[in-house]
Amino acid sequence: MSCDFIALATDGVQNLNPYLPGKPPEELERELGLTDVVKLASNENPLGLSPKAEAAINSGLKGLALYPDSGGYRLKQKLAEKFGFLADQVTLGNGSNDVLELIARAYLRPGDEVIYSEYAFVVYPLVTQATNATPVVTPAKEWGHDLDAMAAAITNQTRIIFIANPNNPTGTWLTKAELTAFLDKVPENVLVVLDEAYTEYVSEAEFPDGLDLLGSYPNLIVTRTFSKAYGLAGLRVGYAVADQAITNVLSRVRQPFNVNSLALLAAEAVLDDQDYIERAVGLNSEGMAFFEEELTKHGLEYIASVGNFITVDLKQDALPVYQSMLEQGVIVRPVGNYAMPAHLRISIGLPEENKRCMQALLNAVDKS
Amino acid sequence: MSCDFIALATDGVQNLNPYLPGKPPEELERELGLTDVVKLASNENPLGLSPKAEAAINSGLKGLALYPDSGGYRLKQKLAEKFGFLADQVTLGNGSNDVLELIARAYLRPGDEVIYSEYAFVVYPLVTQATNATPVVTPAKEWGHDLDAMAAAITNQTRIIFIANPNNPTGTWLTKAELTAFLDKVPENVLVVLDEAYTEYVSEAEFPDGLDLLGSYPNLIVTRTFSKAYGLAGLRVGYAVADQAITNVLSRVRQPFNVNSLALLAAEAVLDDQDYIERAVGLNSEGMAFFEEELTKHGLEYIASVGNFITVDLKQDALPVYQSMLEQGVIVRPVGNYAMPAHLRISIGLPEENKRCMQALLNAVDKS
Repeated sequence: MSCDFIALATDGVQNLNPYLPGKPPEELERELGLTDVVKLASNENPLGLSPKAEAAINSGLKGLALYPDSGGYRLKQKLAEKFGFLADQVTLGNGSNDVLELIARAYLRPGDEVIYSEYAFVVYPLVTQATNATPVVTPAKEWGHDLDAMAAAITNQTRIIFIANPNNPTGTWLTKAELTAFLDKVPENVLVVLDEAYTEYVSEAEFPDGLDLLGSYPNLIVTRTFSKAYGLAGLRVGYAVADQAITNVLSRVRQPFNVNSLALLAAEAVLDDQDYIERAVGLNSEGMAFFEEELTKHGLEYIASVGNFITVDLKQDALPVYQSMLEQGVIVRPVGNYAMPAHLRISIGLPEENKRCMQALLNAVDKS
Repeated sequence: MSCDFIALATDGVQNLNPYLPGKPPEELERELGLTDVVKLASNENPLGLSPKAEAAINSGLKGLALYPDSGGYRLKQKLAEKFGFLADQVTLGNGSNDVLELIARAYLRPGDEVIYSEYAFVVYPLVTQATNATPVVTPAKEWGHDLDAMAAAITNQTRIIFIANPNNPTGTWLTKAELTAFLDKVPENVLVVLDEAYTEYVSEAEFPDGLDLLGSYPNLIVTRTFSKAYGLAGLRVGYAVADQAITNVLSRVRQPFNVNSLALLAAEAVLDDQDYIERAVGLNSEGMAFFEEELTKHGLEYIASVGNFITVDLKQDALPVYQSMLEQGVIVRPVGNYAMPAHLRISIGLPEENKRCMQALLNAVDKS
């Protein structure tokens, strides 16, 4: 007898696409015979590690045979002081991916409905399907969230609504007035997860700070990450801030040591590295202006973005362009998995990286 | 209206005990006015970080603003070469806790039965309950697994059987003959998870290597960790080895970046640090012999252990003894949460730590 171990899995998992690990960039370099590859594919911070974070990591090496502080006591205290909430409103995660998943696992039963927008972050459908809940996808409005459509989609079965502000991979954003008008319509027993992974990059006056809204909306959960402006993607740390009862529930499904010791130390340190954050945000604004100007000059359309990336509409299959850029040593991100086969997402890099990327894009478009 | 966010959670999660984060040891030291605390509470490697792992970590600091290699390509290759299986049989986890949970989430539906032994590792009941599956707990036999009872407990609803070899917190173990006789009785559509977190410490001739059994039992999943003999508890890395179809299923629920960049580098490096592993195992044997001799000499009973810890039977409420040892600056582990209220688990430390611990235990027992 041979057993079908895939058919044995839960229904939701059977229908998930297995993650196919890519080769590491250094393997790619070797295969394509490239050196000096520019990678603008994952919305990472081009400044590299914060010097304060590096010093904190070095101070923690000797203790690595010991388990991490499972409560993340000091990081939670620091976050609470800096942003003005209570330490026991915080759930720490192995990246914000982890907290998004914790929310789904704690609250979703088979048959529960989860609302998210077309073109929204890919983790929302994944965690919905893995828990056998029912996805309710609302059409986008100018590549962003259509909050009226999302409010209209709420039923008695709705348990969670995911909103990314700004959204990845489109860079679109919602104003405070739009968001609060929406939140006013959501029943209190429906959780609204406001994913603010890119919030540090946004300077628009009308852009809301989700943390300020927690007091008015107890069903609101704000998630943030240290993987973007804080430059700690490789260490994995993110967090959710919510009502204490929700935080209590999330703590039940959280693995006790889900955040590693160096991530705790580095995150605490980078919160104090104001200079680093300001440089990161400044560099991003300049890079964004560069791409907007160049793309416009060359007649290429893009989706206006407030994140650390810009998504270009090639009006043609993006894969040949992606492939040509790859051969020129520039890695960007095709977004076909978001049903955007004609777009490429470019992360904002260092000035010289942005220039090489723009040139490779122009070469590729000319050729195709 | 005020919503009960705890009642809103799934049934399994509502009945889980929330994890109450302890204060970090340095806070405890401050509160009790202690210095030079000896912590023998979490079965950690007393040697500290491997020098080869430290060098690997240092080489990775500059890249920490980038996401980890999601496939863990090099670590999987290294594991495959060293232990003789295929790289695509490996699932990497944020500690072996993570892979144990992935298995549960991928395969457990509400109503499925999960068999594990009384006194077995606490993560088995946690992941069972979080997925709304039904726990089937078999009574222990001399503090270890009663494989006959476990085989007899199998029904048509059984989906997963967890076995720890050796077991934590008792240190008991199963021979190869016992284990294979059991595996022969398990239907192929029931997954057997063999948790070998402490395997590196065991030198008994009859002790099985679970990896050798994978070819004969496609429903077997072997889990291992870098948190014990490899000394990387703070970095969080563990893995499962299984049939490729099972590995494919686990990859669907795995978060793409669940293992951080430094953990990948350090794990790869420590696999080459044979000197470190040998020192760790040798130190453990000596420490175990010390405790066995001292405990016997002072008429204290213990459970014979092949792990890096020894569990003492105080024949009385262990908490006052634990508290007295704490006041003497020695932290060990009460195991009341395992329904063993008269036992204390002591991790084997450095020789001077073991002596201080033994003296503190004797003082505490005399006093109580």
